[in-house]
Amino acid sequence: MSESPYSFRVTHADGRARRGVMTTAHGTVETPAFMPVGTQGAVKAITHRDLEGIGAAIILGNTYHLYLRPGDERIARLGGLHRFIGWPRPILTDSGGYQVFSLAARRRIDEQGAHFHSHLDGSTHLLTPETAANIQANLGSDIAMVFDECAAHPCDVRTANEAMQRTLRWAARARAQMWAIRANAVAGVTVSNPGQAQFGIVQGSVYPELREESATASVAIGFEAYAIGGLSVGEPTEVMYDIVSRTTRFLPEARPRYLMGTGTPQDLVESVARGIDLFDCVLPTRNARTGQLFTSEGRINIKNARYAEDPRPPDPDCACYTCRTFSRAYLRHLFMAGEISAASLNTLHNLYFYLDTMGRIRDAIAFGRFESFRLAFHQSLSRPAVDS
Amino acid sequence: MSESPYSFRVTHADGRARRGVMTTAHGTVETPAFMPVGTQGAVKAITHRDLEGIGAAIILGNTYHLYLRPGDERIARLGGLHRFIGWPRPILTDSGGYQVFSLAARRRIDEQGAHFHSHLDGSTHLLTPETAANIQANLGSDIAMVFDECAAHPCDVRTANEAMQRTLRWAARARAQMWAIRANAVAGVTVSNPGQAQFGIVQGSVYPELREESATASVAIGFEAYAIGGLSVGEPTEVMYDIVSRTTRFLPEARPRYLMGTGTPQDLVESVARGIDLFDCVLPTRNARTGQLFTSEGRINIKNARYAEDPRPPDPDCACYTCRTFSRAYLRHLFMAGEISAASLNTLHNLYFYLDTMGRIRDAIAFGRFESFRLAFHQSLSRPAVDS
Repeated sequence: MSESPYSFRVTHADGRARRGVMTTAHGTVETPAFMPVGTQGAVKAITHRDLEGIGAAIILGNTYHLYLRPGDERIARLGGLHRFIGWPRPILTDSGGYQVFSLAARRRIDEQGAHFHSHLDGSTHLLTPETAANIQANLGSDIAMVFDECAAHPCDVRTANEAMQRTLRWAARARAQMWAIRANAVAGVTVSNPGQAQFGIVQGSVYPELREESATASVAIGFEAYAIGGLSVGEPTEVMYDIVSRTTRFLPEARPRYLMGTGTPQDLVESVARGIDLFDCVLPTRNARTGQLFTSEGRINIKNARYAEDPRPPDPDCACYTCRTFSRAYLRHLFMAGEISAASLNTLHNLYFYLDTMGRIRDAIAFGRFESFRLAFHQSLSRPAVDS
Repeated sequence: MSESPYSFRVTHADGRARRGVMTTAHGTVETPAFMPVGTQGAVKAITHRDLEGIGAAIILGNTYHLYLRPGDERIARLGGLHRFIGWPRPILTDSGGYQVFSLAARRRIDEQGAHFHSHLDGSTHLLTPETAANIQANLGSDIAMVFDECAAHPCDVRTANEAMQRTLRWAARARAQMWAIRANAVAGVTVSNPGQAQFGIVQGSVYPELREESATASVAIGFEAYAIGGLSVGEPTEVMYDIVSRTTRFLPEARPRYLMGTGTPQDLVESVARGIDLFDCVLPTRNARTGQLFTSEGRINIKNARYAEDPRPPDPDCACYTCRTFSRAYLRHLFMAGEISAASLNTLHNLYFYLDTMGRIRDAIAFGRFESFRLAFHQSLSRPAVDS
């Protein structure tokens, strides 16, 4: 760890909200930050150039998908994930755990790890805490995640405890594997990025006592930082906010906290208010492709007939290329006509809205006015909805 | 016509190849020029911003598609096609004729025009020389095309003659309609672009004597410029080149000549050598979406397994964003993974290659070395193919 370029520094605090700078082997990330999801080595429907243009500082790659196609070993031979995909900025990779658990009938979990069938060709595979670390070492992401077991929702306390305890045992194995990788002591693994950090994951479903135990024990193992997993899986929003609020209290102030797979713009603001620094979510990109746009006045469905002759931009307050250039009428036409540009322009806007929101959050924290920002943000979003 | 901003000036000639400047109501176009096809008001899989970035000076819109969806009257209410789609540069619209004739069983042609069923909802419609002119007036393109009858290939001389004679009668009606539109004497039509020019179309299939008659009679009617239609419909390449070469001799030197729906990079060079100034074709955009890339050494199919670990750019001689940033291995991965970015990045490259080729052609003509460019171009493309 001594030679790792990874570091994090809180530069401003405002209540429990923090602003900071995370440094990785491929550059710095101002936090709180949102990570667009680039599942297969590309954020869907947007070029890297446009992503950089709207200020994306870090993206997320999915280990499960990249392991299956084109393969982590192939990516290692091509110089690692950054070089393979042509993205020079930081990348975080998940561990593959969440995707594997989502396979339902196609997977079986035991103490060793998760046995599963590929969704591409049905071939059988085994992901373990060790192989997930190896794959991410081949990929060479800047931040690797430990292989965890994400309990479904709802889930009784006994099942949640078992998944959480197993996640802790797996975390210890993953950390040991990471030390071995850093010592170049793992045969067959290419260390594509010697500066790779590793984050632990707190589990425990909706049970505060399990979250506390998971957080405390994860910190005892010792990772560069800590994530909160197993939320945004169907529980009520207020429950999620409560668990986030309670869990962050047991995570070190000096390390970033990453809330995995969340969420709506409101979720981002509320989670920052509870001490979260990092986010990822498919919502802005996935919804863009179905015609749903996030705006400063709420969501609009661009396919709605009411926009057929609406000359206004999607969000009159937005400075993105889409809003500066195109009308709702044109964007609706592109969507109805099945044009690829509909996905591209909607994605560009939604990601801009998310990244711009994070920038406003960071500014508000720096100026000690996060609470007033938070109120104004919710008031703006709760204006009478333009449509459902 | 006196107030029309439309003009054309030949600035350089080199053999039969010409370089010139075409001025329209929305700006100038350096010729020879290639027009990317924006069928439904968008060039597929590329944003206007990227199109402008690679130097597209003019795009083509399809009257048939825009008439059916979102409708030319709606577009007129929204300020015309330029404003509706957010493209400030010149636009040429076809007449809808080619699309209607492609409908085969769904259309019937008589002296009045073409009766057809919409491919979207089966509704019945009638396109005539007059309505095609009216629709294009509503759209407000910078260049409108006359409604013509494009004979199929192969086609006997009698059938070809009938279609050509009908096209001439329709051309006279279209020109009369255009004068009425310019005089604001057509009820229900919004003149979205008072500076709209109108091009005639030469037909006559593969029969030189029909082409001569069609060209001469079209010039007698008098249009701002003339196009050659009914080629690139299945005839041998050498036949096409021969018809182009013979037809341009009967078209005025002082007006641009537009070869419709053509073609390969070689076709562009060979047609410029025979006096053509304008082109449009779906080849670069459509083939991009199926993984075929045009390069300075010929075409490559990016899905070919041989590229799975190829770190080279698609075309090492190309300066486009795709070639400057991404490897064949990554582009193959994106294509195999079904990522939208595959279509975007391939389209960006193919259009760049086409537009860059046109720029090289213009430079070669200006420096009086078009013949040596033409030879070198064919030699480069005929190197041992990278793949089929």
